Order: sequence, then structure tokens, then C-alpha cells
Amino acid sequence: MVKIMYHNPLGNSNYDQVFLDATKAHARPGTEIHVTSLPPEDGAFEHIEYRSYEGRVTTGVMRAVRAAARADFDAFVIGCFYDTALHEARELSGDMIVVAPCMAACEIATSLANRFGVIIGRRKWANQMHGNIVEYGHGGRCTGLYHVELGVTEFQADHDETEKRLLAAGRRAVEEDYAEAIILGCTLEIGFHERLQDQLGVPVIDPSIAAFKRAEYAAALRRDCGWVPSRKWTCEAPPEEEMARVGGFDVNRPFGNHISGAA
Amino acid sequence: MVKIMYHNPLGNSNYDQVFLDATKAHARPGTEIHVTSLPPEDGAFEHIEYRSYEGRVTTGVMRAVRAAARADFDAFVIGCFYDTALHEARELSGDMIVVAPCMAACEIATSLANRFGVIIGRRKWANQMHGNIVEYGHGGRCTGLYHVELGVTEFQADHDETEKRLLAAGRRAVEEDYAEAIILGCTLEIGFHERLQDQLGVPVIDPSIAAFKRAEYAAALRRDCGWVPSRKWTCEAPPEEEMARVGGFDVNRPFGNHISGAA
Amino acid sequence: MVKIMYHNPLGNSNYDQVFLDATKAHARPGTEIHVTSLPPEDGAFEHIEYRSYEGRVTTGVMRAVRAAARADFDAFVIGCFYDTALHEARELSGDMIVVAPCMAACEIATSLANRFGVIIGRRKWANQMHGNIVEYGHGGRCTGLYHVELGVTEFQADHDETEKRLLAAGRRAVEEDYAEAIILGCTLEIGFHERLQDQLGVPVIDPSIAAFKRAEYAAALRRDCGWVPSRKWTCEAPPEEEMARVGGFDVNRPFGNHISGAA
Amino acid sequence: MVKIMYHNPLGNSNYDQVFLDATKAHARPGTEIHVTSLPPEDGAFEHIEYRSYEGRVTTGVMRAVRAAARADFDAFVIGCFYDTALHEARELSGDMIVVAPCMAACEIATSLANRFGVIIGRRKWANQMHGNIVEYGHGGRCTGLYHVELGVTEFQADHDETEKRLLAAGRRAVEEDYAEAIILGCTLEIGFHERLQDQLGVPVIDPSIAAFKRAEYAAALRRDCGWVPSRKWTCEAPPEEEMARVGGFDVNRPFGNHISGAA
Amino acid sequence: MVKIMYHNPLGNSNYDQVFLDATKAHARPGTEIHVTSLPPEDGAFEHIEYRSYEGRVTTGVMRAVRAAARADFDAFVIGCFYDTALHEARELSGDMIVVAPCMAACEIATSLANRFGVIIGRRKWANQMHGNIVEYGHGGRCTGLYHVELGVTEFQADHDETEKRLLAAGRRAVEEDYAEAIILGCTLEIGFHERLQDQLGVPVIDPSIAAFKRAEYAAALRRDCGWVPSRKWTCEAPPEEEMARVGGFDVNRPFGNHISGAA
Amino acid sequence: MVKIMYHNPLGNSNYDQVFLDATKAHARPGTEIHVTSLPPEDGAFEHIEYRSYEGRVTTGVMRAVRAAARADFDAFVIGCFYDTALHEARELSGDMIVVAPCMAACEIATSLANRFGVIIGRRKWANQMHGNIVEYGHGGRCTGLYHVELGVTEFQADHDETEKRLLAAGRRAVEEDYAEAIILGCTLEIGFHERLQDQLGVPVIDPSIAAFKRAEYAAALRRDCGWVPSRKWTCEAPPEEEMARVGGFDVNRPFGNHISGAA
Repeated sequence: MVKIMYHNPLGNSNYDQVFLDATKAHARPGTEIHVTSLPPEDGAFEHIEYRSYEGRVTTGVMRAVRAAARADFDAFVIGCFYDTALHEARELSGDMIVVAPCMAACEIATSLANRFGVIIGRRKWANQMHGNIVEYGHGGRCTGLYHVELGVTEFQADHDETEKRLLAAGRRAVEEDYAEAIILGCTLEIGFHERLQDQLGVPVIDPSIAAFKRAEYAAALRRDCGWVPSRKWTCEAPPEEEMARVGGFDVNRPFGNHISGAA
Repeated sequence: MVKIMYHNPLGNSNYDQVFLDATKAHARPGTEIHVTSLPPEDGAFEHIEYRSYEGRVTTGVMRAVRAAARADFDAFVIGCFYDTALHEARELSGDMIVVAPCMAACEIATSLANRFGVIIGRRKWANQMHGNIVEYGHGGRCTGLYHVELGVTEFQADHDETEKRLLAAGRRAVEEDYAEAIILGCTLEIGFHERLQDQLGVPVIDPSIAAFKRAEYAAALRRDCGWVPSRKWTCEAPPEEEMARVGGFDVNRPFGNHISGAA
Repeated sequence: MVKIMYHNPLGNSNYDQVFLDATKAHARPGTEIHVTSLPPEDGAFEHIEYRSYEGRVTTGVMRAVRAAARADFDAFVIGCFYDTALHEARELSGDMIVVAPCMAACEIATSLANRFGVIIGRRKWANQMHGNIVEYGHGGRCTGLYHVELGVTEFQADHDETEKRLLAAGRRAVEEDYAEAIILGCTLEIGFHERLQDQLGVPVIDPSIAAFKRAEYAAALRRDCGWVPSRKWTCEAPPEEEMARVGGFDVNRPFGNHISGAA
Repeated sequence: MVKIMYHNPLGNSNYDQVFLDATKAHARPGTEIHVTSLPPEDGAFEHIEYRSYEGRVTTGVMRAVRAAARADFDAFVIGCFYDTALHEARELSGDMIVVAPCMAACEIATSLANRFGVIIGRRKWANQMHGNIVEYGHGGRCTGLYHVELGVTEFQADHDETEKRLLAAGRRAVEEDYAEAIILGCTLEIGFHERLQDQLGVPVIDPSIAAFKRAEYAAALRRDCGWVPSRKWTCEAPPEEEMARVGGFDVNRPFGNHISGAA
Repeated sequence: MVKIMYHNPLGNSNYDQVFLDATKAHARPGTEIHVTSLPPEDGAFEHIEYRSYEGRVTTGVMRAVRAAARADFDAFVIGCFYDTALHEARELSGDMIVVAPCMAACEIATSLANRFGVIIGRRKWANQMHGNIVEYGHGGRCTGLYHVELGVTEFQADHDETEKRLLAAGRRAVEEDYAEAIILGCTLEIGFHERLQDQLGVPVIDPSIAAFKRAEYAAALRRDCGWVPSRKWTCEAPPEEEMARVGGFDVNRPFGNHISGAA
Repeated sequence: MVKIMYHNPLGNSNYDQVFLDATKAHARPGTEIHVTSLPPEDGAFEHIEYRSYEGRVTTGVMRAVRAAARADFDAFVIGCFYDTALHEARELSGDMIVVAPCMAACEIATSLANRFGVIIGRRKWANQMHGNIVEYGHGGRCTGLYHVELGVTEFQADHDETEKRLLAAGRRAVEEDYAEAIILGCTLEIGFHERLQDQLGVPVIDPSIAAFKRAEYAAALRRDCGWVPSRKWTCEAPPEEEMARVGGFDVNRPFGNHISGAA
């Protein structure tokens, strides 16, 4: 049995059940899944499309990471395609492994195809996401970021409209720019990857599911091989006594919502 | 139940049991493992340290891939840190996913540390391996390739001597070049990663086990998510009728040895 | 008259006077300088050597940026060589320009020399700082990051010892790696650049002063040329009404300490 | 009081007053501005759109640099967006700092926006200018070079036509390629940046003014901080005695025209 | 007199005379040209558009290289724009130099123009060819790969249709993407470069002729300067005694066809 | 018969006979070789180790290029490892091809080995030469630039001392940094490559001879294939009438010395 926490860095639980259902539907036998989100006191963020919103939820993500590590989770999923607070989270995760959707989706897509396109919601997101893809080493394999003029909270509003736009963007990526796989560039594009894959005829990677599966994999690496994060040189974590002295790294209520299940 | 083939692209079965034991020892429940090697008629290669030796075994690897795909394996591991014939194998693998040790080890190492060193046997190997690491996008995270003056077939000859040399090279990488994780750069460095990890205090990634676990992961992605290789644009496979006309892509005996087991 | 805020993202005011004195001593006539630090309720951080510490102070930096922008400051200096929260701060700064020490020091060093070395405190810092230098476009001009085994709070403890170590590291950079300029890689290496420059015979750039001067320059560009931050595409700021609804972007006391002066 | 020389590497004084007026209009109090151009004996160049024309004026630029350095100028502006002879000029400038329009404009644009487009006159110019942008480290931030089919001497001929073309190119950069700032890629595009900025709604950087302001900044760094060019390793200048022996580095009339003013 | 082998890695001799005629027509006085192809027992490949086809012919290419080296050829041309088996061939070539069309064509094109476009047959080829161009260091000088929807064996079927398509693709590269030279991206685009060059007004490089001329050059470097392949470090060749023990590196009939001529 | 001009961009003829002898000794039959240097009125440069010296001789190089092109030379060699004025020369060369030592030597070295080291005279040269190597696409194949503390004019002063230093630097490159070939990084290192090659056991490329042979190759490409420089887009040359109007591109005495010979 491995334990995965999928953490949704938003200040509400609106989509937590959606993510639990989706991850359960794609889980390995023996995987225990917990879905959590931020406590409302961390801010009533319904989306974190802005860097400043990410900056605001980073503290909450770190607290969630520490709580999960103490509860002996094997792996922790950051539930945003910006891979929000990945560096901070990895520093604090002890022997727990932290994974993130953009990195996970790139790894999968490049194992299945030579080049991929990314369908995002708004142009606003492009700079940070493309920067991450370049940093992860996949810049030369990305055909582009295609925005569909939908905000995070709009993807799940009118499913027909969303699918129509995702499909049009996917066609553009595949037919005009020669993408051979598609990555959905927002965790709230969830629920569309299978129908798009059927219609586009190329692999379509859902980032939430990708990150969740990467977390299962990380958990297996930890359990079966003993591979856990390095704490050497630049991977060093802060001293616990210093963190205690400064205060604020731990709170009584690190999660606003917490539901769980298994395959 | 997922089915993984670990294919050792050598013309003998000397190490097949070693790889079966090692992969079994690190397998998930429900993983069926097959270890195969090349038939002797493909050449009595005891190692493939040269590009020309790789060139010679490529046809056999392709035949093994096709045989495995027909037998409905989920994933296929290329058992050499050169990631020998990875591009060719991926083209022919149908819905089966092909993974390789260097790529798998880099993905794991960079999820656990910011920078890694690679311990190789002879300087001869450095150009091709470094080229792969750069192509995979991890050039900026590699502190160096450290050779220990041992050929492929010597790693398992005198275990004390091998461990001594691997440890010295690891120390050099960690202490002088600030590596935060170590990748063992030959599948025949198998059996050392745990003791090295204990002594070096950083993650030490065995490439055979890394590739095997990556194959389990790929199999899960295929079974649970329906993610299989793209066949669009540059991922297109040759037409079966043309391959039949040309001949030689399939043989009666694609494997010289074939053993199997499960966790 | 231009107005510059130098913001020290620490939870104490221990060094605020040091930074005011140093910036005043290097200011243009007509520059009004304000030095601020974080309110203690943002955490009693005496240093932010860890990414998780940076994550914790990011909210406070954003609040300081918004307060400064509302008070019609021309430019805002982030007082940490990690260039902590630069992206978040720039998003929220309105017509005020945000500058940061590493970026400013690289610009100056590369206008005076072809290659530069960076002297840092601890190896821990190297990955993030080198990543920034690469992102800023100066990776090929950096001879290395040289750590002197001193934490942030130790640089000002024993000035003779600090100078001795900085000098030895500078010599190594210049004589062994052919650096032609030196960047001091921590704002608390303040007070040493002139003596080091005399002894090393190459330009030695203090990052706090560099960032302060870059802020004066940014202020001049704003005042004299009308050049203020773009708000198009990925530079878009969050809507004020949404920020108000979420809450927490503004507080009554955005600064723990606030002193000011002029040349 | 700081002293800046804006040097127009052309063999006539047709635009010298234009540049003096424009720099004066954007100067800090206390800046003394000198505008010079080449003596006619260096060739009657009305533009230097060709590399071979640049090659011809390089000697004159070097002589101007040496004359300015001897006259204790703080900074010297090369008045061409090719950043003509920047490397040669920096070698000979002693304690005076040499700045150039393309580099200055890139620094400013990237402090205000994530990506910028450059509007040039003729396609001829694209290779060298793009090469410079890449060398300066900003290749990944440039959306493209947009030519408007006007030669250097045509920009100031019909202002309405020029503005129309610059505006169309700017719209293309912003709307089709997602530029967030615009750099005008010729010093003779002077006089248009404010109206374009108003109409395009993104920062529009005039390169002459950018370089002039960068020179003021460099002068402040020299005066207030003592930061002058390195002369170590590859920054070494030729020995004066050797230059005297060879001859030709200095002439009686280093400038064809020389006018000055202050804000 | 220098001796060049142009080796066509196909399992038929259909085009051997074409290549002999074309190379003879462009040869230096004193060049002896041999054109060979694979023996049919290596597979009846009429084209090698797939990586797996390349993998199949690699052994035959290596045998041809060894046979040519033993026969004291000065240089060996790999007759496919994939530069098939270049690394393997170079390892085994002893004192003979191995050249390949893509690398040769890039060297020529970049000595004549700043940027070039490549006209290929099918999109399938783009990933590998672009990868080579990047590896060779010319990624930043390539405007794109333009496919004309023709397979290898179709280029010589209807010359009017082929020319029409090559011309249209060339126009697109030159007029829309500002290519300044064109490389024909398949050895079977032979016979068209002169007419295309006339019509496009830019250099059009035929890859077979380019590689042949590069081979003449390599032969001259060997004969006149003594420059032959390095065998140090990663350039080390396998030991002959090991190759003999393994077997299969040499065969009685290394070539299926073998014709020759001279200018 | 092809006609090559080897142009020595110095203001004396001290080494002209040396270069004529060396190129003749390595020429193809049918190559007519002319060695020229600058007229003394272009400055009495005995070396051009400084960028400013290069800037001074650029006009003379351009005049020599134009004179050679008018005299129907096939190719023109720039005789300095800085590849001085290569861009300017190529713009003006009409149908004549311009080649340069660093670019030619890199092409040869990388066709014979995977990695090369460059032996230079003084550290001063490193920045420009390394920049060229990177621009040419070979940065990742260069193990380093090794200086031997000799100026240009000192290489030919004491041959034993020079050889001793070159050999020591070559050993360092090969044994410590794993270079597999050596490039001599100054045209005045002429005369040593054969003895060094014997002693080091790897290819040692003399840059003057490399450039001369590259010129022969370019001449063959022009004569046999009709491949001459592109004049499209950024390769456009200045209009002759404009050059005439400006004046100074042509002089009565474009060469100070002019000797010739043939193999």
C-alpha cells in the first residue's frame, strides 16, 4: 500500500471530489489517495492564474507538504500546472517525494512522441509555463502553447464549449505545427483527455492524472528501491530548530478539506 | 498484472539471472518480468562498449521489440546504459512502450536532487553518454562522467575492487564537483547501489532497476490511462507490408535466452 | 527628486541602517531613499538562505511592493541576492519598477568585463543563484560560484575573517578561472567591495549598491522617458476587485521598520 | 556633473542636432551632453547598413573613444543599433565606459516585459542584430525582428509614412507574436517612440535614448561607486607605446562635428 | 590520385549509375570514384526512410567501411541525408575519413549564407534530420524543414512534378522564412539543384554532391597534410582480435554492386 | 587551375614567405597560391592580438578582398585565427569565397575527433576565440583554450622553447581534459603541427594550412558545382555606386607585398 496526497492549492474544495474520482479511476491497486485543499484562512483563491496568487498560496503548500511528510505519505502532488512552489516543497519534504503536473506530463509525452503542444487557458500563463518546460529540458520538443481564452474556473462551466475549444487548439497544434502529442496545460482541463485523444489520434496527457501516476511511481521507487530525496549541498533542508524558532511552518489546520479513497 | 520484458542486448545469457533476481527484488506486486538476451547468431557480444558493436546488435533489439509487442508486453527495457537502439525500438513497438536506463535514471535523479554525477567504466563511453544526457535535456544538471578504468565485463569480477573504485569516483563527484546524486553508468554496475548509497549519503541510482521501474510505470500508464506511443508525423512506423516484402524484421528465434518471474 | 525603496525581506531591522548608510553614500543628488524590512508577524527570519524561507516572506514582499507603489515610489529594490519574489513583485508593481541585486550586478559586471565570478556564502545557494544567472542570459559569462563557508548572518560578525575569505575566493576566481570581475553574492557582503577591488585589481560589484543604483536608473527612465512596466499578455496584473475579494494583499502594517534619508 | 559623449558614427552632421535635442529632452539634471560625428575624411557615410560600412567607420569610432577618454568623459554612446565597434571601443576606453543602443534597449525592455519585438528597417539587418541579441543573452525573449522596408535615411523623410509602418509592424509583433514591449531597431527611428507607445499600449523603447540613459547610469556608477572597466585577462588594452609606434590611433581631428548642451 | 567510395546504403543498384554520373560530373581531376550499394542479403531496402530501416542497414554500412578502409580508400561517403550510421562508421574506418551529406551540406551552406532551409520529402524525416542539424551546431541557422509529400523513391519518378514541388518549397523558405540558401534534404533529390538555383537565385546545395566534394577534401587533407581520424579516448576503435572472435564484421561480399569511374 | 589568395593581415611581409612555403608544401596540383600582406600605410602592425588592432586592419582586409575578387581569385584566406573581419569580407567578396582559420580548423577537427583543445598564445585571446567557436556551433566540443604565455611574434623566435610549451599544453588538453584532437590557435604556430602530432598521438591541426585547404575546397565547389556566396537578404552587398560615392573601398595599392607560387 502506498499513500499519495493530491493537493489542490486553492482556497476551496469545489473540485476536490472531481480530482479524487479521476485519480481513483486511474489508480493502481494498493494506492491510497488523499485529496486536500488549502484552508480558507490562506485566502479564498478560486484559481492561481497570477504569480502573485501563487506567491500567496506557497506558504500553505509548504505547510501541507510538512503535514503530509509527517503523516508518512510516500508522495505529494502539487495540483497546478504552474508546478507552483515545487522548489520550496521539495526542500521541506523529508523522505517524501514531491511531483508536479507540468514536469510529469512532459516526461510522459516525450516518452510517447518526439514533439508535443500544450493547450492553455489564457495567454497570461504562457511565459511561466514555457519557462518551466525549458528549465525541465524539453524546450526543443515543445511546438507551442495554445490558449483557448478560458480562465481556470471556466473549463468546467460549459463542457461542450470547452471541448470544442480544446479540440480546435489541438488540431492547430497537430496539423499546423506538427505536434505528435498534446499536453493539457491546466489541471482543470480534467475530464477531456480521452475524448480528445480519440478525436485527435495522438496521445493527450491530462496533467492531474499524469502527476498522480508519477506520484505512484515515485512511491514505488521509495518503497521498492529506497530512493528518497537527496539532502546534500543545494538540496539541504532548513534545520528544524531554526524553523521552530521562526515559527509558522506548521499550523493546526494545514488542510481546508481532506477526503480520501482507493482504487 | 503487467508484463515487462527486460532485454539484455548481449549474445550470451551470463547475466540474465542476475537481472531477473535484481528486478524481482524491486518489483511491484503484479508485475510479470521476463529477461531475454540475443540469440548467439546475432554475434557473441559479451559487451557493447563500441558504437559499432551497438550497430551490430540493433537488428536483434528490433526483432526482440517486435516479438515482445506481438506477445502483448506492456513495456520493454533496453538493458544498456547507452540506451542502445532506443529510437529504432520506439518506432517499431506498436502499443508497447520502450524505456531505457540512461533516460530513466536521469528522470529519477533529477526528481531527487538538483545535480548528479555519472560513474562510467571507461573514458571511451563518455561522448555518447554525455550526448544522450544533453539530448534528454539534463546537460546542465550533470556534474561529469567519472570513469573507473573497468570494462563492462570486469565490474562483476572482483566485487571488492569494483566497490572501492565506484566509491572513490562517487566521493570525487560529491565532494569535488558537488554532485547531489549519483547515477551508475553501466547496467553491469548492478548490485552496488545500496552500499554506495549508504556510504555516500546521497541517492545512488542503479540504471537497470531504474529502467525496470520506469517500465512498470509505463505499463501502468498504458493500462490505467490508455497512453501508448504516438504514431503521428515523425513517430510513424513502417508499413507492415513493406517490412514483410523487405524481410528480416522477424525471425523464428528472436531471443537466445528467455527466463521469467514475478515479485 | 526620485523615490527609491530598498526593502530588506527579513523579519528584523538589524541591518536596515547599514543599508541606508551604504545607499546614501552612493546616491545621486535628488534621490530619496527609504529602507524597510518585514513586520515581525511575517516571521522572525534573520536570513532567507532556504527556498522555503523565501516562500514564507514572499507574501510580505508583495504587500511591501503594493504599499510602495501606492505611495508613488519610482522603484523598489528587493534586498536579497536570490532576487526573491522578483516575478511576483513585478506583477503587482503597477507603474513602479522592481529591481533585484543579482540581475543588476550581472548587468554591471558584463558592461565592465567579459567574465565574472560570484562569491557566495554556502554551497546551498549555488543552484538557485546559478539558475537565475542562466535565466538572465549570463550563464556563459560566469566562471563559477565560490562559497566561503559563511552563513548570511556571519558576514558581518568578524570583518577581518570575512575579508580574508572573500579575498581568497576572489583570488581563486581571478587567478585560476580567469574571472575579470567579481560579484559579491549576498547583500550582507556589504562593506567589503572597495577593499577587495583595490586588492584584486578587478571591478568588485556589491549587489545591494548595484541594485540601488539600478533603481535610481529605473526611476530616471520612468521620470524622464515614461518607461514603466508593460501590463500586456503575460505581464498582466490581477484585477483589483478580485484581489480585494480574496483579501490579504494589503495590511495595515506592511513594513516592520521604515527609515529614510537622502544623499 | 557627468559628461556623456553621444557619437554618431556617420560621416555627416545631418542628425547631430536631432540627437542633441532628444537626449537633452530626456536628460537628468547635471548631465553634460556632447554629440559628435565622424570627420568627412573617414568616408562620407550617410548610413552604415552594411557590415563593410561598419568596418570602415570602426577606426573613426576608436579614435573618438580615445579622444573622449582623454577628455575625461564618463561614458561614451555608440550611436548605431548594430552596436558598431563595441568590443573594439571597450578595449580602448580606459576608465570611460562604452555603451550601445541594442544592449541598452534589451536591458530596459526585459526589465519591463517578458518578451519584446524589434522593428528594423530592412531585412538585411536581421542577422547581425539577432546575433547580438542572442550574444547578450536575450534570444529567448525576442519575438522577432520586423522590417518595414525603409533604409536608415528614409525614416526621417516622411514622418507620417514612417509612423504608419512602425505602427503596423508593432501591431503585428504585439497581436500575432505576443510581444509585450517594442524596441525600435534603428537610432534614426528617433522621435516616434512616444506616439507608438500611446497607440500600442506597451512600452516602446527608443534605442538612442536608451543608450544615452544607460550612459548616464554608467557615469553614475563610475562617479558614485568607482566601477570602471576591468583591464584584466581578455579585457587588457594594447600598450600605449606599441600603439604610438604603430601610429594612427590618434588624429588631430577625431570628430567632424561637435556640439553640446545640458538638460 | 585520391580514391573515394560513395556508398548507397540501399539493397539495390537502381541509382548507382545516377550517383556515379553525378559525382563524375563534379569531380576534380585525379579523383577515382567508386559507387557501391548493399548486397541484397542485407535486405531489399529501396529506401531507408525509417529509423528501423536504418538500423537494419547499419551492419552493411560498417562492413562496407571496413572493406573500403582495407582497400586504402581515402574517404567514404554515406549516401543518405540521415547521415545513417555515421558514428559507427567513423569508429571502424581506421585511417580513412567518413563523410556524410547533411553535415557536408550544412558546412557548405553556412559558408555561403547566414541561414538555410532544408527541403525534405516527408514530415516523418524532420525529427531526426533537425536533430542532426542541431547536433552539428547549425540549429540557429536553419529556417525550417519543408516537406513536399514525396517519398524517397518518388523524387525521380516524374521530374516535372518533383521540380515543381521543390521550387514551391524553396520559394516558401526564401520568401516567407528568409532562407538565403537551400539544402536539398534527400540524396534522391539529385539532378535538380542547378535549375532550382537558377530559379531561386540563392545557392542550392545537392547533398550527394556536397558529400562527395567533402570526401575529396578529406582525401586531400589526408594525402597532403596527414590528417586522419583520432583514435584517442572516445574515438577508440574495437580491438581487431575481439572483432574476429565475435565475427560478422567482415563478409566475402560487402557490396552488392560496385562500379567506378573518374572525372 | 584554381587561384587562392592567402592574406596576412599584418603591416609587414616578415612571414609571407613562410606562409607561401607552407601552403605550397600542402597544396593540390593545380593550385596557384598568392600570399599578400597589408600595405604599410595601413599601420605597421606586427601582430593583431587586440580587438582594436583588428579594427584598424579591417579596412585593409576589405580592400584586399575586393582586389582579389576583381582579379578572379576563387577563394580568399584570412590569415589570423581571430578570423578577423570575416563577416565584412564575406559581404564584399562577390563570387569569391572567403574562408578563415578558426572555422576551417574546427570543421576539420570535428570530422576527425569528438572533442578538441585549442592552444593559444596569451589569455587575452580567449574570449574572442571561444566566442567564435561557440558561434560556429562547436562550443560543446571544445575542451578548453590553453595559453602558453607567448605573443604572436614570439612563436617563431625560439623554436625549441615554442615546441616545448605547445607540447606541454597539448599534453594537458589530452591527458587532463580528454581532448582527442588539438587545434593550434595562432597562424604563427606554423611549423609545429607535424612534430606535435607525432608526439601527442592525436590529430594536430595547423590553422593556416587548414584555412588554405578549406580555400582549395571552396574553389573546387565554385569551379565544379557553381556554388558561390548568396547575396539574398542579410547576405546583400552594398551597391557599387554607393561605395564609389563614399570612396575608400578601393586603393591603388591594396597589398604591401605580393608573392605567389604553385605546388
